[in-house]
Amino acid sequence: MTPKWVEALQHVIPDNRLLTSLPDRFSYSFDASFGEYLPEAVVQVMSREEVVEVVKVADHHEVPITPRGQSTSLSGGPLPVHGGIVLDFALWSQTLDVDPENKTVTVSPGVLTADINAAGEPHGLLYAPDPSSAHVSTIGGNLAENSGGPKGLKYGVTKNFVLGLEVVTAQGEIIQTGYRTSEEEPFDVTKLIVGSEGTLGVITEATLKLMPIPQATKTMMAVFDDIVDAGAAISKTLTSGIFPSKMELIDEGCMVAVENYQPSGLPVDAKAVILIELDGHADALADEAEQVANIVKSVGARETKIAANEQEAAQIWTARKMVSPAISQVKPTKISEDATVPRSKIPEMMQKLHDIRDRYDLDLVVFGHAGDGNLHPDILADKRDPDEMERAEKAVAEIFSAAIELGGHVIRGARHRHDESAVYGRGTWGNGPGDDETVKAILGSERHYESR
Amino acid sequence: MTPKWVEALQHVIPDNRLLTSLPDRFSYSFDASFGEYLPEAVVQVMSREEVVEVVKVADHHEVPITPRGQSTSLSGGPLPVHGGIVLDFALWSQTLDVDPENKTVTVSPGVLTADINAAGEPHGLLYAPDPSSAHVSTIGGNLAENSGGPKGLKYGVTKNFVLGLEVVTAQGEIIQTGYRTSEEEPFDVTKLIVGSEGTLGVITEATLKLMPIPQATKTMMAVFDDIVDAGAAISKTLTSGIFPSKMELIDEGCMVAVENYQPSGLPVDAKAVILIELDGHADALADEAEQVANIVKSVGARETKIAANEQEAAQIWTARKMVSPAISQVKPTKISEDATVPRSKIPEMMQKLHDIRDRYDLDLVVFGHAGDGNLHPDILADKRDPDEMERAEKAVAEIFSAAIELGGHVIRGARHRHDESAVYGRGTWGNGPGDDETVKAILGSERHYESR
Repeated sequence: MTPKWVEALQHVIPDNRLLTSLPDRFSYSFDASFGEYLPEAVVQVMSREEVVEVVKVADHHEVPITPRGQSTSLSGGPLPVHGGIVLDFALWSQTLDVDPENKTVTVSPGVLTADINAAGEPHGLLYAPDPSSAHVSTIGGNLAENSGGPKGLKYGVTKNFVLGLEVVTAQGEIIQTGYRTSEEEPFDVTKLIVGSEGTLGVITEATLKLMPIPQATKTMMAVFDDIVDAGAAISKTLTSGIFPSKMELIDEGCMVAVENYQPSGLPVDAKAVILIELDGHADALADEAEQVANIVKSVGARETKIAANEQEAAQIWTARKMVSPAISQVKPTKISEDATVPRSKIPEMMQKLHDIRDRYDLDLVVFGHAGDGNLHPDILADKRDPDEMERAEKAVAEIFSAAIELGGHVIRGARHRHDESAVYGRGTWGNGPGDDETVKAILGSERHYESR
Repeated sequence: MTPKWVEALQHVIPDNRLLTSLPDRFSYSFDASFGEYLPEAVVQVMSREEVVEVVKVADHHEVPITPRGQSTSLSGGPLPVHGGIVLDFALWSQTLDVDPENKTVTVSPGVLTADINAAGEPHGLLYAPDPSSAHVSTIGGNLAENSGGPKGLKYGVTKNFVLGLEVVTAQGEIIQTGYRTSEEEPFDVTKLIVGSEGTLGVITEATLKLMPIPQATKTMMAVFDDIVDAGAAISKTLTSGIFPSKMELIDEGCMVAVENYQPSGLPVDAKAVILIELDGHADALADEAEQVANIVKSVGARETKIAANEQEAAQIWTARKMVSPAISQVKPTKISEDATVPRSKIPEMMQKLHDIRDRYDLDLVVFGHAGDGNLHPDILADKRDPDEMERAEKAVAEIFSAAIELGGHVIRGARHRHDESAVYGRGTWGNGPGDDETVKAILGSERHYESR
């Protein structure tokens, strides 16, 4: 029997964009995280007025709504955990309007984050937040999750670049938050909504700040035989008066995985590397790179490599991006956590993580935005081995306790499936669902949540 | 008859810190804005527990509370508009703890903003928000008002540097918002409270982000015979790939006032100047300054002056700081407004402001953070001249309409008395009130709100 609320939706949404068959709904039941939840209906909205209509039906019948972008989320953002309606923005006619003079861009939620930079580039403008998934994830998801990235160290996370939003509230009212010009909102509803994971309304448009693209960048790698020294190098560099645009840590386990997956010249005999990017005026960067090299050597770096050209720099950053896919190859199940500690506690946290790894006999690797104290400890396991999964669960609890004990915090609900499944998310979204063959292919493989 | 709620306060606050006499209360009835409102009681709190007790009494008896810093507010922030209790933080034992490794500082609300930088400097660290009043205003007021400043152009306003708060809610509960490590708060209550002007609780402590002090700065002045060209120069510079740390506009009227008040070498025969500061690596700045000079000349700058040394740079920025006191000398009443327009609309807004000035025959001058599109149009008048005040009122309404019409916004309630009275605010706060002679001296002069 068709529920009353689905009948109500039929009055406001054309049949071909209101999906209720099991295969259709299955396509919307997962993202790049562990969870799998079947929605009761999927609506492919094409206008803010349709969002309003759907929200009003949902409000009246008390049915949950989950907006969905490219479903690349590692923390279950687009999963319809309590069933109800998934709002799919795939068919939305996307907005991507750069205003070069005012250094702003107005976007609809389904725009790929990387496309914002592509649109700003001809005007010499940059959208600074750079989640590693920027080429496949949408700005809507970035806004809902307040995505960070390597450049967060110098430039901040998503919310630091949001000037205003258009939001459909849970009662179906369209509101404008913030301004298009500055961050002087008396009650900062904009930043309250960014990062609230869809719980406060459906974002239908955003105006973002752009900044001038730095004139030049320089990339370097510092190699350490001791993880504690790597932590010290981060602190010392960041209090030297030099402000790197990126400062990323990769530990031994990650380097080995990357080199096995796609050889990138990482020093697998070292305990850790720090990847550093400096940006600014070309004349300054050579000198700053030398200063950073001296600083990191003074606290025990075995060697430093400065990229001689853009190609070498790109190779280093590709290696960093390979970490997540590479470690996904080590074992079928990747349990990704996200823990931030005060920067000064990184060495101690690394020590604790290694102790936990040894005590529970697990493949535990660590990488992340070390300049911000933001570490990604990932446990590589096999879901089919209950003993290993039990040890992993205990290790996760200890990782959380360790971070909090050191004055840090963890991101709740960050229990991740491996990255690869993001491809399915994208396929579903890009191609539009409803194709039984596609669905069966996905159903058939099952590899996205069980095994490789 | 003593109200019941004052009796209740007497049980939790010692007599010498619970002020109810008229002279005492008068000292707390004004700030640097137009308004004057007498509180019914003043409590000089010394601990968060006392804040809790006072808030509980106020909550029970439904009495408003207004926290007060140095009372330098130009928009009535610390004024007890509905009477009730003023919370004075003067006797609070101030906290100012820099954590150099984590680049954070924890402060109590009564700390002077400039003192945060003084504490960070030995560690090479900077608290970037720089309201022109930083040497006399407190961080508590900055947090309540989300203060900006010249460096807001590159680094952002107060809220961009707040990691976490300790707040006493209206029910008297002590809550911690945010983290001490990063900006990943799921519901960003921190940024909701910053800028909410005390309406959501009493801030009793804040953890702020610090950043490395840039290695060098370079200051320059671009001189324009046409205000429209000055606006164009701002847009063109900011899309050139160079990111100045400050970009301030001063118009002809302001320059004349400054030169009459304290000669500073401003070109009074020009229509406007733009003051620019570049920061970063010394090697880069010489070249960047030359690039900026070429850019501004290409859109009509008559000349550019690059400060040859720190002394010349300081002179230029002192001239900028002199604008507000200087224009206060022109006429007894200064009506200060705060309007932000999209940067590309600055030339048009300047034209509209000049039209309004001419049409209403008023002394209207303009200065401000032009790089952000944030202008301060100030009308200089005499409160005793009802005709002039009426014309000023009409002009203000038109200024507001003009800003909004151009896609901008205005700061509500920005109706300012001239800056000088901030000194009284400071005296009141620094010396502690209750001294009848001090109060009489203030009462006697009356110059702080009526005339010079």
